[in-house]
Amino acid sequence: MPNYKAPLDDMRFVLNEVLDVSQLSKFEGYENADTDTVNSMLGMVAQFSEEVLAPLNMVGDAEGCTYDRATKSVKTPNGFKEAYQQFCENGLTAVTCDEKYGGLSMPVTVGTALGEMYCSANLAFGMYPGLSHGAYNALAEYGSDELKEEYLHKLTSGEWTGTMCLTEPGAGTDLGLIKTKAEEQGDGSYNITGTKIFISAGEHDLAGNIVHLVLAKIDAPDTPEGIKGISLFAVPKHLPDAQGNPGDRNPAFCERLEEKMGIHGNSTCEMSFEGAKGFLIGEKHKGMKAMFVMMNEARLGVGLQGLGLSEVAYQNALTYAQDRKQGAKIDEKAAKGTAPESTTIIKHPDVRRELLSIKSQTEGARMLAYWTAMQLDISHKHPDEKARNEAKKVLDFMTPIVKAHFTDNAVDNTNSAIQVFGGHGYIKEHGMEQFNRDDRITRLYEGTNGIQPLDLLCRKVMMQKLMPSYLKPVEADIKAAKKSGVPSELTRPVEQAARKLKSATRRLQMKGAMGKMKGDMGPTMREAAGMATDYLKLASLVSMGHMWVKMVDVAQQRLDENAENKDFYETKIKTARFYMDKIMPQMHTYDAAMKSGVKSLVDIAEEHFAHNQGTVAEKPRQKPQPPAKKKAIWPF
Amino acid sequence: MPNYKAPLDDMRFVLNEVLDVSQLSKFEGYENADTDTVNSMLGMVAQFSEEVLAPLNMVGDAEGCTYDRATKSVKTPNGFKEAYQQFCENGLTAVTCDEKYGGLSMPVTVGTALGEMYCSANLAFGMYPGLSHGAYNALAEYGSDELKEEYLHKLTSGEWTGTMCLTEPGAGTDLGLIKTKAEEQGDGSYNITGTKIFISAGEHDLAGNIVHLVLAKIDAPDTPEGIKGISLFAVPKHLPDAQGNPGDRNPAFCERLEEKMGIHGNSTCEMSFEGAKGFLIGEKHKGMKAMFVMMNEARLGVGLQGLGLSEVAYQNALTYAQDRKQGAKIDEKAAKGTAPESTTIIKHPDVRRELLSIKSQTEGARMLAYWTAMQLDISHKHPDEKARNEAKKVLDFMTPIVKAHFTDNAVDNTNSAIQVFGGHGYIKEHGMEQFNRDDRITRLYEGTNGIQPLDLLCRKVMMQKLMPSYLKPVEADIKAAKKSGVPSELTRPVEQAARKLKSATRRLQMKGAMGKMKGDMGPTMREAAGMATDYLKLASLVSMGHMWVKMVDVAQQRLDENAENKDFYETKIKTARFYMDKIMPQMHTYDAAMKSGVKSLVDIAEEHFAHNQGTVAEKPRQKPQPPAKKKAIWPF
Repeated sequence: MPNYKAPLDDMRFVLNEVLDVSQLSKFEGYENADTDTVNSMLGMVAQFSEEVLAPLNMVGDAEGCTYDRATKSVKTPNGFKEAYQQFCENGLTAVTCDEKYGGLSMPVTVGTALGEMYCSANLAFGMYPGLSHGAYNALAEYGSDELKEEYLHKLTSGEWTGTMCLTEPGAGTDLGLIKTKAEEQGDGSYNITGTKIFISAGEHDLAGNIVHLVLAKIDAPDTPEGIKGISLFAVPKHLPDAQGNPGDRNPAFCERLEEKMGIHGNSTCEMSFEGAKGFLIGEKHKGMKAMFVMMNEARLGVGLQGLGLSEVAYQNALTYAQDRKQGAKIDEKAAKGTAPESTTIIKHPDVRRELLSIKSQTEGARMLAYWTAMQLDISHKHPDEKARNEAKKVLDFMTPIVKAHFTDNAVDNTNSAIQVFGGHGYIKEHGMEQFNRDDRITRLYEGTNGIQPLDLLCRKVMMQKLMPSYLKPVEADIKAAKKSGVPSELTRPVEQAARKLKSATRRLQMKGAMGKMKGDMGPTMREAAGMATDYLKLASLVSMGHMWVKMVDVAQQRLDENAENKDFYETKIKTARFYMDKIMPQMHTYDAAMKSGVKSLVDIAEEHFAHNQGTVAEKPRQKPQPPAKKKAIWPF
Repeated sequence: MPNYKAPLDDMRFVLNEVLDVSQLSKFEGYENADTDTVNSMLGMVAQFSEEVLAPLNMVGDAEGCTYDRATKSVKTPNGFKEAYQQFCENGLTAVTCDEKYGGLSMPVTVGTALGEMYCSANLAFGMYPGLSHGAYNALAEYGSDELKEEYLHKLTSGEWTGTMCLTEPGAGTDLGLIKTKAEEQGDGSYNITGTKIFISAGEHDLAGNIVHLVLAKIDAPDTPEGIKGISLFAVPKHLPDAQGNPGDRNPAFCERLEEKMGIHGNSTCEMSFEGAKGFLIGEKHKGMKAMFVMMNEARLGVGLQGLGLSEVAYQNALTYAQDRKQGAKIDEKAAKGTAPESTTIIKHPDVRRELLSIKSQTEGARMLAYWTAMQLDISHKHPDEKARNEAKKVLDFMTPIVKAHFTDNAVDNTNSAIQVFGGHGYIKEHGMEQFNRDDRITRLYEGTNGIQPLDLLCRKVMMQKLMPSYLKPVEADIKAAKKSGVPSELTRPVEQAARKLKSATRRLQMKGAMGKMKGDMGPTMREAAGMATDYLKLASLVSMGHMWVKMVDVAQQRLDENAENKDFYETKIKTARFYMDKIMPQMHTYDAAMKSGVKSLVDIAEEHFAHNQGTVAEKPRQKPQPPAKKKAIWPF
């Protein structure tokens, strides 16, 4: 069974030494976030994750959730209920919730560090409180005072949980297509009718009530078409009674559980709303705006899942590599001419390559996740409006990168970790393959990794023009690092990648300007859509490289000061070196792929994608094509 | 449920038009391989794969194999037994076996095309006859006449199956560590004792007998240490009686089935040999040589599995993309300003990118697989010794590339196909996630994809100096294509990648020469081991690019001749264009990564790989590091 030890040393390095998270406690509303409190929370959550959640991870996978058709109820895997109770008792549902509702009012940056541990220890479990938190945020920002009073105390304490009900059979990426309808009842409530699929934590036995946040279209003549006519509703499983306790059962039922590739411990429900009573959140037809409050934090949260799984996969691959003996050390073999003793596989350069690839990407992602979360905190709480606005821009730019890059990366990382185990990585009992299966969903939900690049390039860069705000800290940090003596081989690749990113942006902007002049933006949009994935990948390298520059700068300062833990800081710098040497060169691929344009993507007609033109049966199988006659290619 | 249609058009293009496989029928022993026979076999196997094997694929996954502890027997999933019987009755086990034993004496190239279909339709099923074939080959080449007479008829007919028993708990990649011992009995037989793990098809209910090919060390004082002291034995489940039928049960038992990530329909057994009677294959202590006959063809076979899974994943992703409507067509959106009708997702450039990435890599891999198989046929049967030798060199060079590149690639391809399905790709009922899980083993077995690069660079390139033989057809084909007017943008990237590959080789060779002068090959070996994976990836791009050049050349000729199926040939050229534009640029990454050397791989001490230095508990969690003092990094 895999093991998990929270990487507290590395987390503290990021939180305390690089970000100096204690400064957040100076913000109004974050006064609780003093260093001692944050540190003791990290320690407590580490222990809880290691001792309670991690041991339930394989159980959850093997057992999964079970559905009882008669009562339409769902049972979570053995042990989940007790763990959830403990989770609530320890106040872990309340960390970043407002004191007003019984929360601890901690910064999102701190919540992010804690969240990483849940994702590492037991992703399927962590999703239950994670989804509640999304519902909490949307209600806190857009809910009426009455709704807030009714739901936020219970969501904070964890007595109730929440969901996000977006997807329908015919509407996934394109939410404009949803069919669920809301009929106004005249008493301020709506009757919600429709089917939602892929609803994580849609039904379970962990909590006394569930509040579904449901996207629906109001059934009225003035409801706009498509995405502009969508509203958001709170639909509780049980309507709260006069005392605020779960009362009448609302007809919002789980109809079945999906059978999935992984995250078996989390219930993925098809939900049927059969005239269920719902309450409008925010304004009519402005549901997408409220939904994006959930969605954007959820996207950061999904990125964090990728990070958490990469970390735990790394730890176990490392242990195995330090333990497993196979093959002789390569230069000893050369030196002696005969096969010497076999050695631990961590001695083999290619195994080191696999490990360092995970290590460098995980540490970079951790830094980037916490730094991005800090932008969120600044954008919420900084006393200066300009600082808030700038942070918001950086946050908006980073969100699709954190979501898509971390999760694409995590699939690679968990695959690499399997690879270190050799054939044993394929066997269930080692638990490595579960990390890969659990992780696979992260590239899909909360906006597929095909959508994130469009969000980055089309919306954030082209429409909202956020690039300059993003580049400001990148360039400032590189400049600072160079000034404090960070060797140029650790900054140059990042500068080079940033230049490539800027010129790709400029090329597209010029095309856009020309398109505008001609009154036809079609070619520019197509070009953008075709290059968006490579663009996001290049931007991810810049962002990760930037984070490595920040970390190396601090590590170098520590070494200059002769600080304790010399090995830690030296390893940090050596890991940066690996990232610059072996990962950053990917920039050349993305750059060249973008430069080749969109022609090869749009050139082939839809009907010519198939390997069989026409159905096979229609063609005479007996009659081969005549051989090429011009020249004899054979035998080579 | 996924669907499978054999891509006969594309297969015939490769076999008939590019390779002109009918020429193989001129070789002694391959006379049966005339065009009509080959074509009718393709058609028959296509139908069998589509109608019998493919429908059993999800059943096999859901049901898996079951183990009966009392009888130590294994039951395959429902339907597998009947399908196997039909498989044998149709003569499909006999295709490439020698007529002497009842086979059809077809070229391996033909067997490869048929094998691709089994891999697409039902990988777990296809492994049973696949392993028999490995055993057949080793016995045919190294077995005594008596052993051949006893086993090859039955393996050809499929009445008996075979296995490869290599891995032990302590010996995977490093077979020198195996502990299974063989005691000479004086009657020409040996008693085999030991435990083997991960034995695919080790026990099942498909056939009347199983012949295990077992690596063991002869228990004698003159047995050399390590890999040089290993012998290969045939150990039947039932000892053949006087009539050649299954007789006494040999104590070679399945002790348990492994629970795996995928290929659930195939039994992965822990085998216990308890003094089981075995018969030496080939010479004493030369087991590795005989084993490599199985292994090398098995490696090509595993590459083929990657190809087969990529193909079937592609077909289903394509169908989904042509059917599923989400989002407006991007340039219409731009043109009208309001959201128009949603469109099929194949219209979206990023979905096309995912699809064309699979398509171009799958078609290239098909060409490369069949071409490599043809080298094998030529190396066996060509009347001219020089042609045989040259083909053998190319084959040896290609084997690790086909194994590692196709399977790394297939993990990406099956992942991309899931991505096209969005969230539905994660749900079992669509079957897409099974392709990814089934595929994951291919990167691990028959030599992990960490070992293949070492085989390529250290053995094939550095020791055996096969590069010139490999480059000869590459350069000749590029020259020919240029001469027949293939546009330079379709050849230049391949030339560029080949140059990079050559210079990487030269750099390493120079280091080697210097090392030899200094009498220390250690640094060169380390360098080679550290760059081997990037080297193999670059060599794979050259090889795939080479195949695209060959295909484009023929397609261009066909268009010049005004042949029928114009669309097919035009699409071929456009797909090549995609490969050159979007995939070939990876060469820059591998090239730069190799140039950065091995320093960043070997620099970090083993004990500093962990994210926690020392155990976490030993450190005071309450006491944070002091914040960086030199400069305020925050808020950015």
